[in-house]
Amino acid sequence: MKKFMDKDFLLDTEVAKKLYHEHAEKMPIIDYHCHLIPQQIYEDKKFRNLADAWLGPGDRTGDHYKWRALRARGYNEELISGPEDDYTKYMQFVESMPYFVGNPLYHWSHLEMRRYFGIDEIINKKNAQVIWEKANKKLETLTAREMMYLHNVNTVCTTDDPVDSLEWHKKMKEDKTLKVSVRPSFRPDKAINVELSWFASWVNQLAGVVGYNIKSLNDLCKALEERVQYFNEIGCKVSDHALDVVYYAPATYEEANKIFLKGMKGEKISNEEQDKYKGYVLMHLGRLYSKVGWVQQYHIGALRNNSKSMLAKIGPDTGFDAIEDQNYMAKLSALLGALDGEGSLPKTILYCLNPRDNYALTVLSGCFQKEGVKGYVQVGTAWWFLDQQDGMRQNLETLMQVGLVGQSVGMLTDSRSFLAYPRHEYYRRLLCQMLGRLVESGQYPEEEIDTLGQIVEDVCYNNAKEFFGF
Amino acid sequence: MKKFMDKDFLLDTEVAKKLYHEHAEKMPIIDYHCHLIPQQIYEDKKFRNLADAWLGPGDRTGDHYKWRALRARGYNEELISGPEDDYTKYMQFVESMPYFVGNPLYHWSHLEMRRYFGIDEIINKKNAQVIWEKANKKLETLTAREMMYLHNVNTVCTTDDPVDSLEWHKKMKEDKTLKVSVRPSFRPDKAINVELSWFASWVNQLAGVVGYNIKSLNDLCKALEERVQYFNEIGCKVSDHALDVVYYAPATYEEANKIFLKGMKGEKISNEEQDKYKGYVLMHLGRLYSKVGWVQQYHIGALRNNSKSMLAKIGPDTGFDAIEDQNYMAKLSALLGALDGEGSLPKTILYCLNPRDNYALTVLSGCFQKEGVKGYVQVGTAWWFLDQQDGMRQNLETLMQVGLVGQSVGMLTDSRSFLAYPRHEYYRRLLCQMLGRLVESGQYPEEEIDTLGQIVEDVCYNNAKEFFGF
Amino acid sequence: MKKFMDKDFLLDTEVAKKLYHEHAEKMPIIDYHCHLIPQQIYEDKKFRNLADAWLGPGDRTGDHYKWRALRARGYNEELISGPEDDYTKYMQFVESMPYFVGNPLYHWSHLEMRRYFGIDEIINKKNAQVIWEKANKKLETLTAREMMYLHNVNTVCTTDDPVDSLEWHKKMKEDKTLKVSVRPSFRPDKAINVELSWFASWVNQLAGVVGYNIKSLNDLCKALEERVQYFNEIGCKVSDHALDVVYYAPATYEEANKIFLKGMKGEKISNEEQDKYKGYVLMHLGRLYSKVGWVQQYHIGALRNNSKSMLAKIGPDTGFDAIEDQNYMAKLSALLGALDGEGSLPKTILYCLNPRDNYALTVLSGCFQKEGVKGYVQVGTAWWFLDQQDGMRQNLETLMQVGLVGQSVGMLTDSRSFLAYPRHEYYRRLLCQMLGRLVESGQYPEEEIDTLGQIVEDVCYNNAKEFFGF
Repeated sequence: MKKFMDKDFLLDTEVAKKLYHEHAEKMPIIDYHCHLIPQQIYEDKKFRNLADAWLGPGDRTGDHYKWRALRARGYNEELISGPEDDYTKYMQFVESMPYFVGNPLYHWSHLEMRRYFGIDEIINKKNAQVIWEKANKKLETLTAREMMYLHNVNTVCTTDDPVDSLEWHKKMKEDKTLKVSVRPSFRPDKAINVELSWFASWVNQLAGVVGYNIKSLNDLCKALEERVQYFNEIGCKVSDHALDVVYYAPATYEEANKIFLKGMKGEKISNEEQDKYKGYVLMHLGRLYSKVGWVQQYHIGALRNNSKSMLAKIGPDTGFDAIEDQNYMAKLSALLGALDGEGSLPKTILYCLNPRDNYALTVLSGCFQKEGVKGYVQVGTAWWFLDQQDGMRQNLETLMQVGLVGQSVGMLTDSRSFLAYPRHEYYRRLLCQMLGRLVESGQYPEEEIDTLGQIVEDVCYNNAKEFFGF
Repeated sequence: MKKFMDKDFLLDTEVAKKLYHEHAEKMPIIDYHCHLIPQQIYEDKKFRNLADAWLGPGDRTGDHYKWRALRARGYNEELISGPEDDYTKYMQFVESMPYFVGNPLYHWSHLEMRRYFGIDEIINKKNAQVIWEKANKKLETLTAREMMYLHNVNTVCTTDDPVDSLEWHKKMKEDKTLKVSVRPSFRPDKAINVELSWFASWVNQLAGVVGYNIKSLNDLCKALEERVQYFNEIGCKVSDHALDVVYYAPATYEEANKIFLKGMKGEKISNEEQDKYKGYVLMHLGRLYSKVGWVQQYHIGALRNNSKSMLAKIGPDTGFDAIEDQNYMAKLSALLGALDGEGSLPKTILYCLNPRDNYALTVLSGCFQKEGVKGYVQVGTAWWFLDQQDGMRQNLETLMQVGLVGQSVGMLTDSRSFLAYPRHEYYRRLLCQMLGRLVESGQYPEEEIDTLGQIVEDVCYNNAKEFFGF
Repeated sequence: MKKFMDKDFLLDTEVAKKLYHEHAEKMPIIDYHCHLIPQQIYEDKKFRNLADAWLGPGDRTGDHYKWRALRARGYNEELISGPEDDYTKYMQFVESMPYFVGNPLYHWSHLEMRRYFGIDEIINKKNAQVIWEKANKKLETLTAREMMYLHNVNTVCTTDDPVDSLEWHKKMKEDKTLKVSVRPSFRPDKAINVELSWFASWVNQLAGVVGYNIKSLNDLCKALEERVQYFNEIGCKVSDHALDVVYYAPATYEEANKIFLKGMKGEKISNEEQDKYKGYVLMHLGRLYSKVGWVQQYHIGALRNNSKSMLAKIGPDTGFDAIEDQNYMAKLSALLGALDGEGSLPKTILYCLNPRDNYALTVLSGCFQKEGVKGYVQVGTAWWFLDQQDGMRQNLETLMQVGLVGQSVGMLTDSRSFLAYPRHEYYRRLLCQMLGRLVESGQYPEEEIDTLGQIVEDVCYNNAKEFFGF
């Protein structure tokens, strides 16, 4: 029996151990997509205790992975996402831990204890008190920045609205004490979601930022271009889109502008209109990204706000989202193909939230390659609900079989938490495991072990550095 | 080499063996969804021979899993589902057995021989005669009820039409000799499938049962409510819906009633109308179930009666059904969300027939949890075509990764046969195998073995007992 | 550690070794679907060097699997598919090889070197020169036919347009020196794709072949029937359809003919019209195949020509295709059901390009069986992007769980290359591995090893021979 989560956790061959300990382990982290709050990095946030750091501050923001698990266990919502009683929250989480068998929370949580706090105890009721004390002691000095340094984090890209002033990013650029490169990324979902109730108010907010009225789609496009320029100046290298459903149809400016105007008046937008408007804006943005040399990210497939009662009670992004099952390959192909056809397809990462689409999406990405770039369009690592062993394994297996794993820009946390960096470790161990098994089973020659080491280092760090231009 | 199907069948680690033999094996069976015929339980059916018990009585009813395999082998339909020649049917099944390698029939059949008849022989032509004789000898005393007792069956829920008088269930309630709790379940598909030719005639049948005319959808809703009450009095705790395709759209009473009236006249019902009518009735039923505290089951994704020639020849439910591939997450989310939004979502089990939807469905279920209940909405075990090792493994893996396996109400047979109980054993062994491998590979600590034992017992029995309120 | 790709490559149990070396290895190859060019077989093509044989002649035709991998690596298109510099192309492919870890190209390429050229060296930069020399030396005598003989190829079915004169096939029938049975297959996609720009011109070409004007759909149907007869006389036993998306709706002749006439005029054809026209023609062809006893093949699910820029630059079928994700089970069921309902469903093989549909398609195929035939309708082996270990494994696992693997007609190359035969070996090894593991893990008794041997021989050769009537 293998020891529980020892230094060779998930590494079940000699090759895997070698790849991990000699190559993966030492590489810095580039977390090119996350949801850290820039102000917290700048101000070097301190946590009041382990519950605050681990489960969330108690203001309905926090780790919705953990919240979902606690809800499934039947706990009271107030003691999950609510404002009070850190210790009770902590205790019910720790007591629940053994029931998270097979769930990534079990591994994440133990990695978090070990890597941040040096706590090797198994997390359960029996050890609850000693963990609480040790961790809280550590948190006296273990601030947000220290957490990042501890994990050799080299670069972080936060997720920012085009209307954002990026004030904290600007301050961080000036801050010589900050040893991590923190960059914004450009997330213009609100410019695209013309069907949502807050569209007009967001456009008007943008108008305030750029300093002129936005009365037409051309105005909006101009404003977006200015914001792309502005973000670029602050160091942005990447955009991000939550394409829950992929909308795309070719559209003339007149058509798209008419839909823009309907959206500004809050009129109902049909699916066909969404195809045209969103396609038009995504094309426009793709051209802009292409010009400044950014990477664009499409996060595809979320089905949001499923519980209406909880949406009303505690708001969005609190753990009531799920996975879409709409078909989108033809539309996505048409969108990428249209940009490609006019020579303005930027480097692109496609993220898949429904594992049933791994193969189709990975193969599609292989149709848009470009001389001189490794993996010009590529599928991103397993995302959100799929950011776990089975999801990552399917993602990597697919990538190996119909793509080239060695070109991948690798892992990212997509997280709101400073405690999320061990997910890179989890991913790296799994990568080394899979490669090691190929050698062990006679499917890849031991003589090429150096190439494997190179591939591991590339996927862990070098590829991202090169691809994004950090 | 592991011995063929010995006592440690599928148990490939010491932990798995311990979990199975010390925990899983001893737990009684709650078969909360099956298609046993209540009269056969009450009358304690005797089987004329092994062919009758194993393959079906020869009246076009029987085990369509076995029939499908025999058809793929190219046998004559008369000797598959037809009325004659038990011994010939038996022989061709036994001769075919070695060709069922990798198919659940191979394991099910051997488990059936071992557990019911004490026959350890490998099933093949050579052993055909001795098996036939031993089994038939045993069947002289091994009646339907004895088969249930042999497997420590505690509770069984049959599947019953709202118009059913439940006369056999009433008799069983009075029968002090019956050592299994047999309950009806409420399956109102015919009230929902407004587009089918027999809708009006079924509604009229229901009218006969409740004793008044059903001239409007309100009348139908009232009649359904009365039948829910009636079923509840007889001990029903669970409903079941065959949602081959999920239909749902919000609808007013007037809209839905208009469609009801079209259905009663046998007029063609469009997809949009199905969305509205079915959504309306499912909402109504959900509220009723919620009031009486039942669990509702949605069996999603069958594509029925694919062979028109065989439908004409031997009727429905004879092995010519398949798997739908329509998308349904948004509609299902809207339906559950609408019930949840008004506080009348009952406990719900969602069954997935297309494994490509495992992840999306399991994640969606996690969006509807409730304080004080473990897994208020949960995904059911792998169903029908997926009730086999690969299907169950994917189902359990998904449940572990994005849910909590320890909250599951576990296995059911969904079967028409008294010989189906070893499927619980098959599932339990697989569950223990998967948990054991996590410990063996250092992914879960041996120190928590007691929790694993508890989880196994919960999934095998305790959770179902608590969830359904048996 | 298992030795890299030794004689027991992929065979990880004693049973697997026995099954492969005593059964699979000796069986001849029936390659019942490929894209070899008949003229090249007849003329016994010689290759100018390894680059020509391995990567393509340099005229934008060649091995698009390899091209895709090279594109993902970022190479220049001219040095991938372009006309020049065999050695440079060869070198960049060989240098890239170690980066193909986990990709079928790695195994295919090494099998190709070993089986055709007796080259055991690991393919990489270091060994590039020696491989180049050894292989080119061998190619002096290793012609197209010799490559086939070397692999014990018994039968090959090429893929031919109904307008094809089959002149090379006729010559091969007369050629007593040819030791492989080469047959045409009938691929009438152009008669079906009424929506494409070249429809009318193809129909007119067909008119030229049959010698009368084709002015109505009845004329087209008559012409197709004549071509089926003609192909049949030359030895054709199988048709093939690229149903990228399954279109089907019942249609009268008048409806379908109207759409035919629109297609002839190049008018836009709606999706509903495609359903009717294509359904009508597929029904017609199904009846024809049924009459002459052919097998029909449906290749479902390609999404073609995704890169518009590369389509413009180097044309179709050059590696820019992907995988569709449309739902099609209900339509496919209706099409097969309609043919079945009138007694004219031919033997059918359904190929699945999106692995998410494996289960649904395999179960659907099981609904259309026929007395006296093993697997009358069956799912084909993993296709195109899925023709790799993970794809084949999922395909076989599904087939085992919801079908019967022993009825399968097994592997085919679907390839344009004479170097593709080791894909049969790859498939056979995997099949033996999977069966061996079942025995090793106690899931199938060693006593039935002879049946397993028979199953392996059947799947490798006997089933195809019997099913197609070769």
